[in-house]
Amino acid sequence: MNRRLVARLLGMVAWLIGLTMVFSLPWAWPVLWEGPVLWEGPVLWEGPVTGMHQPFELRGFLALLTSSAVCGIVGWALRHYGRPTEDTLFRKEAMAVVGLSWILATVLGGLPYFLGGVARGRANGQPVRMNVADCLFEAQSGFSTTGATVLTDIEDPELVPRCLLFWRSSTHFLGGLGIIVLFVAILGQGSAGKVLMRAEMPGPSKEGSQERMQHTAWVFAAIYCGLNLVLTLLLRLEGMNWFEALCHAFGTMATGGFSTLNGSLGGFHSPTIEYTVILFMILAGSNFTLMYFVLLGKPGKLFRDYEWRTYVLIILTTTILVMIAGLWGRNDFDPHGELEGVKALEVAFRDGLFQVVSILTTTGFGTADFHRWSDFSRALLILLMFIGGCAGSTGGGMKVIRVILFVKILRHDVEQSFHPSVVRHLRLGKEPLTDPELPRNILVYVGLIVSIMTISWILLVAMEPDETWIQAGQPLENKLVDSASAVAATLHNIGPGLGIVGATQNYAPFGQGPKLLFTFLMMLGRIELFAILVLLIPAFWRYR
Amino acid sequence: MNRRLVARLLGMVAWLIGLTMVFSLPWAWPVLWEGPVLWEGPVLWEGPVTGMHQPFELRGFLALLTSSAVCGIVGWALRHYGRPTEDTLFRKEAMAVVGLSWILATVLGGLPYFLGGVARGRANGQPVRMNVADCLFEAQSGFSTTGATVLTDIEDPELVPRCLLFWRSSTHFLGGLGIIVLFVAILGQGSAGKVLMRAEMPGPSKEGSQERMQHTAWVFAAIYCGLNLVLTLLLRLEGMNWFEALCHAFGTMATGGFSTLNGSLGGFHSPTIEYTVILFMILAGSNFTLMYFVLLGKPGKLFRDYEWRTYVLIILTTTILVMIAGLWGRNDFDPHGELEGVKALEVAFRDGLFQVVSILTTTGFGTADFHRWSDFSRALLILLMFIGGCAGSTGGGMKVIRVILFVKILRHDVEQSFHPSVVRHLRLGKEPLTDPELPRNILVYVGLIVSIMTISWILLVAMEPDETWIQAGQPLENKLVDSASAVAATLHNIGPGLGIVGATQNYAPFGQGPKLLFTFLMMLGRIELFAILVLLIPAFWRYR
Repeated sequence: MNRRLVARLLGMVAWLIGLTMVFSLPWAWPVLWEGPVLWEGPVLWEGPVTGMHQPFELRGFLALLTSSAVCGIVGWALRHYGRPTEDTLFRKEAMAVVGLSWILATVLGGLPYFLGGVARGRANGQPVRMNVADCLFEAQSGFSTTGATVLTDIEDPELVPRCLLFWRSSTHFLGGLGIIVLFVAILGQGSAGKVLMRAEMPGPSKEGSQERMQHTAWVFAAIYCGLNLVLTLLLRLEGMNWFEALCHAFGTMATGGFSTLNGSLGGFHSPTIEYTVILFMILAGSNFTLMYFVLLGKPGKLFRDYEWRTYVLIILTTTILVMIAGLWGRNDFDPHGELEGVKALEVAFRDGLFQVVSILTTTGFGTADFHRWSDFSRALLILLMFIGGCAGSTGGGMKVIRVILFVKILRHDVEQSFHPSVVRHLRLGKEPLTDPELPRNILVYVGLIVSIMTISWILLVAMEPDETWIQAGQPLENKLVDSASAVAATLHNIGPGLGIVGATQNYAPFGQGPKLLFTFLMMLGRIELFAILVLLIPAFWRYR
Repeated sequence: MNRRLVARLLGMVAWLIGLTMVFSLPWAWPVLWEGPVLWEGPVLWEGPVTGMHQPFELRGFLALLTSSAVCGIVGWALRHYGRPTEDTLFRKEAMAVVGLSWILATVLGGLPYFLGGVARGRANGQPVRMNVADCLFEAQSGFSTTGATVLTDIEDPELVPRCLLFWRSSTHFLGGLGIIVLFVAILGQGSAGKVLMRAEMPGPSKEGSQERMQHTAWVFAAIYCGLNLVLTLLLRLEGMNWFEALCHAFGTMATGGFSTLNGSLGGFHSPTIEYTVILFMILAGSNFTLMYFVLLGKPGKLFRDYEWRTYVLIILTTTILVMIAGLWGRNDFDPHGELEGVKALEVAFRDGLFQVVSILTTTGFGTADFHRWSDFSRALLILLMFIGGCAGSTGGGMKVIRVILFVKILRHDVEQSFHPSVVRHLRLGKEPLTDPELPRNILVYVGLIVSIMTISWILLVAMEPDETWIQAGQPLENKLVDSASAVAATLHNIGPGLGIVGATQNYAPFGQGPKLLFTFLMMLGRIELFAILVLLIPAFWRYR
């Protein structure tokens, strides 16, 4: 283990986080000076800016400033320890960098919330400040682009300073960038993505040259930032102010899901915005390698890609099924029966498509409360949680390619069971998959997901007392399901689950232990298990 | 595919079923003649035998007689088609025999219920007769030793004739025998058990000699019948009548779970009976190969066996956890607060141990309604559902050995991920596992279980209308969980699940489609997926 190289790279991560914090500072000014509000508009708040929130905003400003200084110092210390070295990055070091940088980011990213005294909500009129577990949870939720939150009222400036609300969305941006650069470009998309990567990427081959790797990382970062910019402009034109447009662009392109409204994206009541976000969520869940080819003028690569075609097919099929289940003998999309004819169909299509895309890409934005939908629709959405976006995207979950390969391997092995002598290769579209280790990798990955979910579920049920459900006004008999959905929603980086953590609820009621468990799960899921799991094995640190 | 050989063996299965039906006939006599009742006692019914049930019992008697004649004819036809042949049994033929014999048994075994007009229950005072799906479900539940039922009142002789109630329990006996002989001895316990089998069995090696295989089959059958006999005698001595003693011995040794009382085994209110049944459930869930060694005077083989030690450890640990969770700040085992001191502890131990063993071995007998237990205890019991008994036992589920290997493979592969060059072998106790295909087989098995459960769950939710929950007086919001538990309880051959299919409920409310789905799942789970799945592949039938 080349610890100096790892430390050096971690130092860069700390600096990047500190730098991003600086960009959140300006959003405190309009509140502090009561001057021209950069993001004025009817949605955030109305009337003159007065009350207790001005000193509170100042505290947030200072918290961000201090945290960014801490990041600078930590980064300097790490880079001082890891003096210039010419070593190349081996697989083991890359795993350590990815794993440790997420842990470092969580701690540094949670600092502003803690110093700023951000409040989870109110109890008896008094703000309830975030504790350490809350801060780590919120930071990890941002960086892992999960979008789960412990904040019950983000619109109230006396509970959440505006600059920290912007920092919260910025963690999505940084997390998405980290996935694209660190994970996709350097680690080569984990076990499943490697297949695609090797076959198609003009960038790094297996343990490719340093130069090529850096080139890919830059190209991917540029595409990611470019898409963020385009979406921000579009959302601004469609009626959001700059603050909202930036935050929601960050939340969309990182497949995160943090909003600036308590009602999530549904709070804007704008079909145009919803369709725009649907489109960009679909893009964010697509393989960045393929988008690079589209930019190079080869869109055929995208449309011929087996994984992407399956991804689009899943979206379309599920949307149609959800529409049928919601319209046939029910009124899921229009509970008050106000809509008619084409309009009713359009709303069903929009709501259905939005939720399907939001869950499949693991974004977690909400426009409709799917808790009231038919059980069949809800079962389909739960299923989508386990699929996730394409490999090489910012989407979480198991990834479409793994699910495809998983199904193919199972079918292959059942057929193989009665004539074991005939050897047949797995195929993806027309290409045979010859990597002999791939099937086992995929199966182990699914096995790990199942095991981690089971253990976490038992732990959560044991740790969280029944009172949590009673106090939150949720039926106690749903404890087992709600817990399972919370574990799935954090491990797969989706955000909202069912019941107590449903689309209109949040993670605030949970205790500190469960929140730390969720923090760990979000991290695990984000960097596809292995980069974190190996950190827990002593042997990983011993051998070269 | 040597179809003649397959047909010949299926013919034997049909004859065996017909023969067993004949043994159920005598239990109709006492009712018909109102004479000395062989199984008289206060539990079944009191007073003189009168009313509408006498002609009904006669109908049951005739139904059994006709069905047994049908079995004889079908068996004769199959054996006529499959004229004597000297061919050896290859893997493919063995799979076909196992798969097809379960299908054949389901159809033939369901015939008496249908002809006898057995009633599921009453609606407006009128008996509701079993339809075709009900009959197939009940027969499959018996043969697969699941113990799930569609009968709401088995104590009423006007709904269920006594001879057919005995036939119902006999299907457990036959199913258990079929598993031990056909599956354990001939197919070699599936992918996981093969390891143990090859290493330790004095019987068949891989594609062993016909003679050795037959020897093992006979020995296993003898152990199985012997244990049934011993348990029957014990239960008779402990206060059951012969009818009850036989039925419960069948239900226990086959890890089935059909009872003769609506209150299951708890209806006897006898601690002695409960402890006896606990002991025999543990035996029924143990590997028959090891019990053979115990009979040969080598009990050390049993106590040194890695799988068996884990199995016992799971039982003890879970029982202690369930006891702690139920006693610490709660009153799960004594809701009315009637017990004190040692007595309270004894009841907690007995109830806890009984449920743990009943679920782990997939028997499904009930003495306590665990629906009211703490969520942590319920979560543990749900977890046990997925483990099941030992390989080479009559227990269902994934089997302890598969779970052990699954965990070991995952740990091995995570360690392997950062130094892939170092090759290490998996170990079971002190023995290295050198079979290169084993890890993949285990992983595929787990993957298939997960996939089949998911697809069945979605299908069930789509097929079963919400009205079922409303009419059954169960909360509709539990539809998703109840459905998942029903799928798990049938696929793993347990019987009771949660909510609408909980310990005090049954499968009667479901529609015909879902019942056929459950029938299919019970069959799949029982013969460890492959022997049924391959039957669905056209290529299986084409090639030699």
